[in-house]
Amino acid sequence: MSQTKIYEGKAKILYTTEDPEILLTVYKDDATAFNAQKRGQIEGKGVINCQITAALFTWLGSNNIPTHYLDCPQPNQMRVKAVKIVPVEVVVRNIAAGSLCRQTGLPEGKVLPSPLVEYYYKSDELGDPLLTRDRIFLLDLVDPQRLTEIENMARKINQNLQSFFERCHITLVDFKLEFGIDAEENLLLADEISPDTCRLWDRDNTDPQSRVMDKDRFRKDLGQVESAYQQVQQRVLAQLKQQL
Amino acid sequence: MSQTKIYEGKAKILYTTEDPEILLTVYKDDATAFNAQKRGQIEGKGVINCQITAALFTWLGSNNIPTHYLDCPQPNQMRVKAVKIVPVEVVVRNIAAGSLCRQTGLPEGKVLPSPLVEYYYKSDELGDPLLTRDRIFLLDLVDPQRLTEIENMARKINQNLQSFFERCHITLVDFKLEFGIDAEENLLLADEISPDTCRLWDRDNTDPQSRVMDKDRFRKDLGQVESAYQQVQQRVLAQLKQQL
Repeated sequence: MSQTKIYEGKAKILYTTEDPEILLTVYKDDATAFNAQKRGQIEGKGVINCQITAALFTWLGSNNIPTHYLDCPQPNQMRVKAVKIVPVEVVVRNIAAGSLCRQTGLPEGKVLPSPLVEYYYKSDELGDPLLTRDRIFLLDLVDPQRLTEIENMARKINQNLQSFFERCHITLVDFKLEFGIDAEENLLLADEISPDTCRLWDRDNTDPQSRVMDKDRFRKDLGQVESAYQQVQQRVLAQLKQQL
Repeated sequence: MSQTKIYEGKAKILYTTEDPEILLTVYKDDATAFNAQKRGQIEGKGVINCQITAALFTWLGSNNIPTHYLDCPQPNQMRVKAVKIVPVEVVVRNIAAGSLCRQTGLPEGKVLPSPLVEYYYKSDELGDPLLTRDRIFLLDLVDPQRLTEIENMARKINQNLQSFFERCHITLVDFKLEFGIDAEENLLLADEISPDTCRLWDRDNTDPQSRVMDKDRFRKDLGQVESAYQQVQQRVLAQLKQQL
């Protein structure tokens, strides 16, 4: 068989294809939080996140940001360029929320004076700890030149996504990115961009609970998780149509 | 009364004196670990840590590193210059141990290719979390120029202490520093340097447990805490006599 499962993560399964340079990602409905201590399902999430990611990667690609995205053979399946994933999760923050607040005491919702780009060690075992630049180099995870390239690309992605989501009437609070390196040593945006990996607040709603349109609805048991994800999908797909 | 208690910490009490530019630090025998979740007493620790700190601050002072140390009116009491404490704990690491190992997976005892200078938020409430440079500036804890000055001074202190402890047949694994700013805006080394704030391994002993000469004996219930602290005091005071 041409499709061999090579990795199953919390939200996606990765398969080989007949082409060694192409992998198939299958998005699952499974949801986990707090390093998989909380588990559940969000109905339709696999399709929704696959479609949102495809739309945002298409939008970013049209703005000269290289991604690993190729196409979607099925609504919850994505063909991607095979890359070596950089073992550092890149988090871009525009507004204080989540672990930044827990670790610094900053109040949730505080608009940051400028976007904060942070790095976390991609290690479930260690609980994805915060990394300083010196720790990244000490652990030999990324070299300084590549890290500068990653930071610059992350800031450019943030600018593009902020303006895209603004037109969707959504505030991009923060988001997590993963990067990959292809056979030619090019840096590509990889993984996904979805309500699982972003904090998204409805701009037309100021209530701190009901404005939440992302996985915090699941993490904090706020209810209406599916409909929030659907709302994001509808607005993103409608906006992409207008833009392209 | 001229002495008013202005602060009681886990290991020391701070009093005013008749001179507003001078404070009195009284070192306690109380020992805490894991953000005060573990509590106990180490007999004689107040005197030992006060004497070790006085010796090391004297040694560093003679090497042109400014400290807040003035003198010891009693064996467990230290008069210090009043400073505004910088709310960032500076940790210098020569060998991987403690939270660095827990957070990165590096094996304890791994010699680092070059000394690592790290910053932690001085906040018991938040559990003294690791800080990136960007978080330090975001929280407005230290400005970039002062942070460079702190890093340079921390590296110079490390060089001096490493060679001093080497002559004591002790390996300086890592240590925590605090800095203060005096009325003239000068940066001074403050707080203490003792087996409470350093990891110190006996160079004449390779056993990973019995070589430990610092608060890890208390943290990890290794026993013989008092005698280890006494050994450090004896070696440090003997070495200071030879050097000065």
